Amino acid sequence: MESLFIGVDVGGMSIKAGLVDSEGNIVYKSTRKTNAIDGGPGVLLQDIKELLKEQIKYAKTHDGEVKGIGFGIPGVVNNDLGTIDYACNLGVENLNLRSYLSDLKIPVCLSNDASVACLGEERFGAAKEYDNVVMLTLGTGVGGGVVIDDKLFEGVEGKGTELGHMTIVVDGEQCSCGRKGCFETYASASALLRMTKSEMIKNRHSLMWEYCNRSLEDVDGLTSFECAKKGDVSAQIVIDTYVKYLSEGILNLCNIFRPQVILLGGGISNQGDYLVDKVVKYCEERNYGYKNTPKVEIRIATLKNDAGIVGAACLAMDNVKEKN
Amino acid sequence: MESLFIGVDVGGMSIKAGLVDSEGNIVYKSTRKTNAIDGGPGVLLQDIKELLKEQIKYAKTHDGEVKGIGFGIPGVVNNDLGTIDYACNLGVENLNLRSYLSDLKIPVCLSNDASVACLGEERFGAAKEYDNVVMLTLGTGVGGGVVIDDKLFEGVEGKGTELGHMTIVVDGEQCSCGRKGCFETYASASALLRMTKSEMIKNRHSLMWEYCNRSLEDVDGLTSFECAKKGDVSAQIVIDTYVKYLSEGILNLCNIFRPQVILLGGGISNQGDYLVDKVVKYCEERNYGYKNTPKVEIRIATLKNDAGIVGAACLAMDNVKEKN
Repeated sequence: MESLFIGVDVGGMSIKAGLVDSEGNIVYKSTRKTNAIDGGPGVLLQDIKELLKEQIKYAKTHDGEVKGIGFGIPGVVNNDLGTIDYACNLGVENLNLRSYLSDLKIPVCLSNDASVACLGEERFGAAKEYDNVVMLTLGTGVGGGVVIDDKLFEGVEGKGTELGHMTIVVDGEQCSCGRKGCFETYASASALLRMTKSEMIKNRHSLMWEYCNRSLEDVDGLTSFECAKKGDVSAQIVIDTYVKYLSEGILNLCNIFRPQVILLGGGISNQGDYLVDKVVKYCEERNYGYKNTPKVEIRIATLKNDAGIVGAACLAMDNVKEKN
Repeated sequence: MESLFIGVDVGGMSIKAGLVDSEGNIVYKSTRKTNAIDGGPGVLLQDIKELLKEQIKYAKTHDGEVKGIGFGIPGVVNNDLGTIDYACNLGVENLNLRSYLSDLKIPVCLSNDASVACLGEERFGAAKEYDNVVMLTLGTGVGGGVVIDDKLFEGVEGKGTELGHMTIVVDGEQCSCGRKGCFETYASASALLRMTKSEMIKNRHSLMWEYCNRSLEDVDGLTSFECAKKGDVSAQIVIDTYVKYLSEGILNLCNIFRPQVILLGGGISNQGDYLVDKVVKYCEERNYGYKNTPKVEIRIATLKNDAGIVGAACLAMDNVKEKN
């Protein structure tokens, strides 16, 4: 029988799960719509369990055995206790996931979603030849994951590596965490939208107005990138500003962790080399320390939508290995 | 024969070395003046070797055996190669310390001075009951050390944890590293002096003028603290400003590493509870995340001038243990 691991990527609108083999291949994948916020934690738990049962059944009928289950949670967890402490996008607080799933008799472990994505990329994705990796997910917010010496680093109780909540501008933009000037408020997709709109208001002749049907409501994460590529000066100002703040945060993480590679994931990372080239240029001119200091590579994450599933399965693999 | 370890704290003006037992006690200590900058690396190496020979001799005549030698270097090192890559305060570049000391036939390892101080405090100082510690040395610059799971974390090639070179104000004060707005430019003793002078110029009636004989040249790290304690409003503004920036950096490190404790060392930390109480108050009001997130303790380091010796000896202990 082949050993398999279930990786579960929990979101507010859908739960994605996959059976992953020890080489990181997803052998079976399924998705279930959920409505965690309106349905309440009971509905979410039920949906998760049904999805897991389906996966376990598939494994059994295909000569596989599920050795462990890992979760990537968009929020704060406590893996010692097996609880989701707080996840506002799921409307969940102090929920003991592990004890609810104990009847499955399979070890359950959980971590933050950006953390498991980083672990997945380090093992089977964009950084598979490295052991020291920092990953940033550039979406609505900025998530962060850190792998040190091939092991997920999470801080005490798994509460660390909130890399998006590192202030880079004291007294800067208000952040949802209560502080001001967090990296997230300058490097997230939401920040890019704010910068785009602000620049558009300054320049009524920018191509960006055409691109979004002359309506600020239609501005999205592509507006500035697409128009900058077409030569629009205002759009280029937006991108340069965004790249500057993103790079300042990246340089901080280089100096703090000195990893082998920093990976960029999330929606904005779809800009690929166009984004990476600009970030690398900014960072190389400001690399800390003396010429002997090793440069940190910057790459786009490659597992894309599967990063959560694969990463959560890796977490389960490590968890089982640790216990044996 | 008792196993002993030599810890060496290398500075531009003096080299301090100590024989440390496995309980962290310094059983013998000696200091040698040096003049690394004027004398050149040859003089520095010679001074180091003579100091080591003296320590080894003392060990032998007191029924001890030196099992390892550790160095704390004010600069960038490569412990894989045994080199000091760059240390401007020593006037040294690409110096192979390990190979120069190979005739002693004792394993040699080296790290950054703030890193070894953190290790020393974690093992035998202010954080001896903890395994996850971040330390900041608040001196001319801001040094940083990180211990994770009882192991010194140094990043690739030992080039990481330059915590003073995390930008907290994009486009802020110019830093010697080439970037702007580094934590060091707001939380070092030099930053405190700048803030003190700037506030004094604004208020010619401040008590601080009396305290420093009406001369800006006589301003030191105590001026604002002493006058603030006496109720001088301008001095209190300086301290509040300093505490704000220091705390913002500390909050960043809480969110990034979520350690059990953050230690403050270096000259400014002599302010003790007066400083800690203000920092704790600032941080508690801005603690990241939900109420379940563990609070990070903030403490003053306790090994003081011995932190370098004890920490470097701990590095040697770990190095020897790893090889066996």
